Amino acid sequence: MVKVLVTYFSETGNTEKMATLGSEGARQTGADVRVKRVDEVKPEELRDYAAIIVGSPTYYGSPAAQVRKLFDESFSHHGQLEGKVGAAFTSSANIGGGNETTVMSILQSMLIHGMIVRGNSKGDHYGPVSINAPDSRVQKQCRELGRRTAELAAQVT
Amino acid sequence: MVKVLVTYFSETGNTEKMATLGSEGARQTGADVRVKRVDEVKPEELRDYAAIIVGSPTYYGSPAAQVRKLFDESFSHHGQLEGKVGAAFTSSANIGGGNETTVMSILQSMLIHGMIVRGNSKGDHYGPVSINAPDSRVQKQCRELGRRTAELAAQVT
Amino acid sequence: MVKVLVTYFSETGNTEKMATLGSEGARQTGADVRVKRVDEVKPEELRDYAAIIVGSPTYYGSPAAQVRKLFDESFSHHGQLEGKVGAAFTSSANIGGGNETTVMSILQSMLIHGMIVRGNSKGDHYGPVSINAPDSRVQKQCRELGRRTAELAAQVT
Amino acid sequence: MVKVLVTYFSETGNTEKMATLGSEGARQTGADVRVKRVDEVKPEELRDYAAIIVGSPTYYGSPAAQVRKLFDESFSHHGQLEGKVGAAFTSSANIGGGNETTVMSILQSMLIHGMIVRGNSKGDHYGPVSINAPDSRVQKQCRELGRRTAELAAQVT
Repeated sequence: MVKVLVTYFSETGNTEKMATLGSEGARQTGADVRVKRVDEVKPEELRDYAAIIVGSPTYYGSPAAQVRKLFDESFSHHGQLEGKVGAAFTSSANIGGGNETTVMSILQSMLIHGMIVRGNSKGDHYGPVSINAPDSRVQKQCRELGRRTAELAAQVT
Repeated sequence: MVKVLVTYFSETGNTEKMATLGSEGARQTGADVRVKRVDEVKPEELRDYAAIIVGSPTYYGSPAAQVRKLFDESFSHHGQLEGKVGAAFTSSANIGGGNETTVMSILQSMLIHGMIVRGNSKGDHYGPVSINAPDSRVQKQCRELGRRTAELAAQVT
Repeated sequence: MVKVLVTYFSETGNTEKMATLGSEGARQTGADVRVKRVDEVKPEELRDYAAIIVGSPTYYGSPAAQVRKLFDESFSHHGQLEGKVGAAFTSSANIGGGNETTVMSILQSMLIHGMIVRGNSKGDHYGPVSINAPDSRVQKQCRELGRRTAELAAQVT
Repeated sequence: MVKVLVTYFSETGNTEKMATLGSEGARQTGADVRVKRVDEVKPEELRDYAAIIVGSPTYYGSPAAQVRKLFDESFSHHGQLEGKVGAAFTSSANIGGGNETTVMSILQSMLIHGMIVRGNSKGDHYGPVSINAPDSRVQKQCRELGRRTAELAAQVT
């Protein structure tokens, strides 16, 4: 059974909702899914999962410092996340620039860990983006992200 | 009088509309503004302008090949665009990923030329993004981009 | 047997050498590997491969227009590359900015196609970067990229 | 007299050295230059400078969480940094991916604040990158970054 971590930072609750939706999608595949705030995740724990999905608000075109802190600290286990599957999503208070670069920043960190990421030819290609609370379009995308990520993890594990 | 070039590639006419709107904004400052399709711009001509605004559809998260061709060929004048002002905008057939990375790709090319670029704390921060035909929000942003770019060029020339 | 395409644009021959090295790595896995210049690849042909590796010189922080043209034209088969594996590499005439953004631009286009990409926790994390002719470090990385990409394609196909 | 802030996070001292070099370049223009660690900078203080230069180590393709924290907190003064000049630099423990994306991440945050940034047609185009301690090439680039940034601030203020 594939283990999946959905971890997020959320200030307004929107990113948290996206995390819950992502976890629902992952569970549909039969995966063992944990949902945690980033400050509850110990860096060494990242090694325990076949897939890691990270969500953050968009803060100046980047993930929140709290999310970056987890990546910074993950350095102590560099090389041990090789071949795991990663995915990212973001929420934003306004339409405007910075959502895509936030998602890409998370995916880039995962690539530097040697992780595997996948885009989506439909919807928000790099990862789901919600403007304020997730509407039905975003809800569907978050669930799909969870499902696809868990499925890919099952294939490569 | 500051000379401004607005150059674009457009397939459906949406990027062309954005270019026209940008040129209107630039003209409000009293600048001498030319609007040209990218295939009408000779690389050596880029040296004649104090500001260069480039627009493209979003094709797979990047500007169209026709826009990239102009940058590729601009290499023959590398170093001669130092200190000029640049700006970018994009249109897209669908909501979804790739608009921001398209704008950033153009801005990055401008930075490599030693050019000066400016964001906007309101609206589409890196540069205007239109989903299909420019609506009133986007129209305003395109005009503002033209105006701000011409004003900045007047300051640094 | 997994089919792998290595396609590239090369002006000075350096990117071509990287492509050859990548193909050698892929062949070590027993994959059926084709190496083609981008202008020899028909968009519909992309559907035939389980993995697609794309190489380009770094031109103003982006791939060459010839590489972008292939992605632009691949739109006619949008959705049909879902789940394939992708990878990228670049060569550059000088040290300096733009190599990483070139590799990321190719990977972003692949993500928009719904493709799967993988980083490397060692070496050039997003994809191999050669300054001028590939030295022994880069040669090793290109072969490893080919091998890893073909292996991943075998796992997910 | 133009006021310039050089702020940085440094673990090994390399980014700090780059900050010092940048401040030397800025001072050559007659600017009033402060050098501070990011944790010494109050968000409201950012309004006091005509130019802000930010340096960080490369951590997983992004600036350190400490640097991101300053940007996150700067939200309370959103809009008030419009038209200021920004620049970025990074140091890294190894050659490999992530340096450029780190510099671009800082520049993107500055663009979202409506700030003005400039590339360099020579050297590290987006901003200086040092592998370990800054060598003579990087030292020169850091000083030049400081000088150019202060000069641009003088022009647009």
